[in-house]
Amino acid sequence: MAYLVDLNSDLGESFGAYRIGQDQDIIPLITSANVACGYHAGDPLVMEKTCQMVKESGIAMGAHPGFPDLIGFGRRNLQVSPSEAAAYITYQLGALEAFTRHHGITLQHVKPHGALYNMAAKDKALATAIAQAVARYDDKLILLCPGASEMALAGQAAGLKIAKEVFADRAYENDGSLVTRSKEGAMITDENLAIDRLIQMITKGTVQSIDGKDIPIQADSICVHGDGAKALAFVQNIRTSFSQQGIELAPLSKIIS
Amino acid sequence: MAYLVDLNSDLGESFGAYRIGQDQDIIPLITSANVACGYHAGDPLVMEKTCQMVKESGIAMGAHPGFPDLIGFGRRNLQVSPSEAAAYITYQLGALEAFTRHHGITLQHVKPHGALYNMAAKDKALATAIAQAVARYDDKLILLCPGASEMALAGQAAGLKIAKEVFADRAYENDGSLVTRSKEGAMITDENLAIDRLIQMITKGTVQSIDGKDIPIQADSICVHGDGAKALAFVQNIRTSFSQQGIELAPLSKIIS
Amino acid sequence: MAYLVDLNSDLGESFGAYRIGQDQDIIPLITSANVACGYHAGDPLVMEKTCQMVKESGIAMGAHPGFPDLIGFGRRNLQVSPSEAAAYITYQLGALEAFTRHHGITLQHVKPHGALYNMAAKDKALATAIAQAVARYDDKLILLCPGASEMALAGQAAGLKIAKEVFADRAYENDGSLVTRSKEGAMITDENLAIDRLIQMITKGTVQSIDGKDIPIQADSICVHGDGAKALAFVQNIRTSFSQQGIELAPLSKIIS
Amino acid sequence: MAYLVDLNSDLGESFGAYRIGQDQDIIPLITSANVACGYHAGDPLVMEKTCQMVKESGIAMGAHPGFPDLIGFGRRNLQVSPSEAAAYITYQLGALEAFTRHHGITLQHVKPHGALYNMAAKDKALATAIAQAVARYDDKLILLCPGASEMALAGQAAGLKIAKEVFADRAYENDGSLVTRSKEGAMITDENLAIDRLIQMITKGTVQSIDGKDIPIQADSICVHGDGAKALAFVQNIRTSFSQQGIELAPLSKIIS
Repeated sequence: MAYLVDLNSDLGESFGAYRIGQDQDIIPLITSANVACGYHAGDPLVMEKTCQMVKESGIAMGAHPGFPDLIGFGRRNLQVSPSEAAAYITYQLGALEAFTRHHGITLQHVKPHGALYNMAAKDKALATAIAQAVARYDDKLILLCPGASEMALAGQAAGLKIAKEVFADRAYENDGSLVTRSKEGAMITDENLAIDRLIQMITKGTVQSIDGKDIPIQADSICVHGDGAKALAFVQNIRTSFSQQGIELAPLSKIIS
Repeated sequence: MAYLVDLNSDLGESFGAYRIGQDQDIIPLITSANVACGYHAGDPLVMEKTCQMVKESGIAMGAHPGFPDLIGFGRRNLQVSPSEAAAYITYQLGALEAFTRHHGITLQHVKPHGALYNMAAKDKALATAIAQAVARYDDKLILLCPGASEMALAGQAAGLKIAKEVFADRAYENDGSLVTRSKEGAMITDENLAIDRLIQMITKGTVQSIDGKDIPIQADSICVHGDGAKALAFVQNIRTSFSQQGIELAPLSKIIS
Repeated sequence: MAYLVDLNSDLGESFGAYRIGQDQDIIPLITSANVACGYHAGDPLVMEKTCQMVKESGIAMGAHPGFPDLIGFGRRNLQVSPSEAAAYITYQLGALEAFTRHHGITLQHVKPHGALYNMAAKDKALATAIAQAVARYDDKLILLCPGASEMALAGQAAGLKIAKEVFADRAYENDGSLVTRSKEGAMITDENLAIDRLIQMITKGTVQSIDGKDIPIQADSICVHGDGAKALAFVQNIRTSFSQQGIELAPLSKIIS
Repeated sequence: MAYLVDLNSDLGESFGAYRIGQDQDIIPLITSANVACGYHAGDPLVMEKTCQMVKESGIAMGAHPGFPDLIGFGRRNLQVSPSEAAAYITYQLGALEAFTRHHGITLQHVKPHGALYNMAAKDKALATAIAQAVARYDDKLILLCPGASEMALAGQAAGLKIAKEVFADRAYENDGSLVTRSKEGAMITDENLAIDRLIQMITKGTVQSIDGKDIPIQADSICVHGDGAKALAFVQNIRTSFSQQGIELAPLSKIIS
C-alpha cells in the first residue's frame, strides 16, 4: 500500500485592499487549505472568495483561527485566558462555516495560527481550551497540530481526531518538538535535505534530531508556503520527489480515520 | 382570541472591559433579544455569556449584525457595496450561531443594527443583499424590519418571513415610514401617548401619522430599550398596559407563521 | 520664468505584514509625499520607515489622514459628524508628526484621503471641520485639495494656504469639479491625451471640460500613483514631457506662498 | 518643609458609545492625569473632551500609552519587539499632544498602561525601547514608573527624569518589586492599613515588605482609581489623612526636578 500524506497551506490571508499570498498558484499543489477567519488575517469578502476557489479546486478546507492581532498578523504571543481563547476559536469557526455552508464545503480540520499555534503547543491550559472549544463546536473536526505537543494531548482528551503536522524547513529536538528559531541549526535551508527528511518521516516514521539521533515522528501533513516563486517551486519539488518515492497525496480526512 | 405582540431589545453590546446596557434587567421584560455579533458591538466572551443568559431566561434570540464600526457603534452610515454587506451579514450570523449552537438555542430572527437598518430600509440594493445573505444562510430565519421599507420587500422577495417592527417613541409619515429625527415632532415624548399609540397599532392596525391621518400599520414587534431605570420602567408600563388591554406577549416565532 | 508644478503621491500605506504600493520606486519621481497616518492605512512601524525614506530622498512630506476604516481602505463614505472629523484629523496629524519630528522633517501639507477627500470636496460642514482642525493644529500647513471644492473655500476661510490638485486621468465638469466615475467619459485613458491636458492646465490655466468647453483650472499639484510598473512608467512619461515643455517640478511649499 | 506627593489616576478611557471611569469625579481629587491615547482605550473625541476637562481643572496631564488591544483593554501581555514598542509609544504621544497643544496643556509625563507597564518593569529591552522613544520624542517628559524596575533604570539611562510610583493596595517584595497578584497577601485590603503604609512611605521612605522587613521605597506619586463610589471615597480618605499628617499634594513636575 502506498504512503499517504497531506500538504497543507495557509490561504485567504488577504485583507481589504491588501493582498498576501498567491492562493491561486498554491491551491493546485496542496490537498488541504487552512483558511483565515478574520482575526489575524482575512475578511468576509476574502472568505467568500476563498471558499469559491477552494470549492472549485476540490481540495479540503480547514479553519485557521488566530489571535485578534491584525497589525501583528497573529504572530505575537498574547496572554489570553483559556475562556478568551475558547471564545475566539468558537467565533472564528462559526464565521468561516457561514461561508463554507452555502458552497457545500464541509470543514475538515482546524489549525490554530501563528502564535496561538506555538503557545498552545506548550501550554496545557490553552491547548485544552482550544481543543474543547473545537470539540464543542463540532467533534468531527480534525485538529491539525504538532505531534509532540500539549495540543495533540488536549485534542485526544477532548475526543478529537488528531493530525500530526511536520515542517520541511525546521529541525527537531530529541523530544520531537521544534527547535526554537533563534537556536543555531534550527532551520533546514538545504532544500534537497529538507525533502529527504520529509521522505524519511513518511516512509520510516523517523527524523534525525538536531543532536543527530533518529527519533520517531508521525507525518500526517506537511505545512508548505505559497508566497513567492521560490516557495511554489519548492512545493513542486516536494510533489515530484514524493511521486518518485511512491508517496501519494491526500487530504487529512483520507489519512486520519 | 387575544392580540399577540413581541417585545424586542438589543442585547450583548458590551465589549471587552466596557459595559453597556442592563441585559439582566431587560431580559425578564422582553420576548426576543437581538444579540450583537462583534462588529458594531459585542465580543466573543460577551456573546458566550449572552447566550447563557438568554438560554436560562427562555426568551427567543436573533442576530443583530451591524457595520464594522465599533468606534461609531454602528450608528453612522457607511457606503458598503451589496457584496460587502452580504459578506458582513454572513460572517456575523455564523459567528453568533457558533455560540447559540452548543447552548441549544435556535436563532429565531435577524435584525440589522443602527445605520445598516436605517440604510437598508430605503436602499433596495442594500436591502436585497442583506435579505439574500440571510436567506442563503438559513431561510427559516425571520427578518425583523420596518413594515414600510425596502427591507420588508426584499425579505419577501428572498423568501423570508417578515416581522414588522414599530417604535413607541417615533412619529410616522403618511407612507408608514419613520419621521426623520431632525424634523419637529419626530419623537413621541409623552409616555402615556406612546403606549396608547402602541395599543392602537396592535388592536386596530392603525396609527396617527404626523399629519394627523390614521394610516395602516402592522405591529409584530415593538423595539424597547434597557439602558437606564427610566427605560426599564417604561417597558414595565407597556407590559402593564398591554395586560390590561388583553394584549399578550410572545416571541416572533409564535406571531409570524 | 519657468512653470512650476508639484507631483504628489500617497505613501506609507502598508500595514503590518501587508505591503501595498512601491514607495521606493515612486519617491524619486515625485516632489511631495502624502503619508498615511494609521487610520485607513499605515501603522507606526510603517510611518517610522516612511519618514526615514522620505528624509533620505529630500522630497516634501504631508499628512494623509483618512477614515477609521482599514477594511475599506478609507474609500467608503462614512457619515461622521464635523466634531468627529476634526478629532480624527487632529489625532492623525499629531501621530504622524511624532515621527517626522525626530527625523527633522517639517510637515508641508495635509491631503485628506479617499472618501474623506471626496466627501469634504462637496460638504461644507465637513470641509470646515477639517480645515479648522488643520489650522488649529498648525496654520502653516498647506491644504491640498481640489480647486473647485468646499474644501478649498473652507481652507481659505480658516486662514490656510491652499494648493489645488488636478488629476491626469479624470474628466472635469464645466464647474471644475470631477466627473463622477460612473459617468461615461469620466476617465481619461489615453496617456498622451492625459499628459497634453496636464500641460495645458499648467501652461494655459485651462482644461477642456467633458462638454468640450475650455474652463479655467489651477494646477498646483498633480496626483500620481506608484502601484505597478505601468503607473510608474506613466509618471516617468509625465516628467519627460514636462521637461521638454519647460515645466519644472517643485514641492508645494515652493509653489504656494 | 512639607512632604510632597502626587496622586495620579487613569483618565479618558471611554471609547465611542462606551463610558468607563468617572473622570469628572476623580479630577478634583488628583494632581496628575494619565490620559489614554486610543490604543488600549480612548478615542479622538474622548481625548478632545478629556483635554478640556483637565485644562479647566488645572491638574497636570501625562500620556498613558498602551498596547493596541482594545478588546483586552491593554491588560494582556503582548510580545511586541522593541521597535514595535517604540513606534507605538511615539504614535500615541504625538496623537495625544495634538489635542493638548491647542488647549495650552504641556505634557508632564508618560506612564505606560497595564501589561505594557508590567512587562517593561521587568524586561530591559522593552523598557529601553520605551524610554528611548519617550526621550527621542521629548526629553523633558517625566517617566512615571515603579522605583525598583527596569523601566526606572532605562529611563535614567535615556536621560529622562523618573517619578517613582507606589500603590496603596499592593504588597511589596524585599527588592521593592510588587508581589504578584496571585500570591497570598499580595493585596492590602484594609484601607486604614493602606493609608498608614502610604504615610510611612512618604514620611519615612520605607515600607514593610511581605516578609516583614522595612525596605526603602520612594513615593513620588500614588496611583489611585476613580471607578465607583468606594474608590472615590478611598481617595478622599487618603487626602484627609495626608492633610492631617502635613503631606501636601502637588503634580509630578513640582516634585521631580
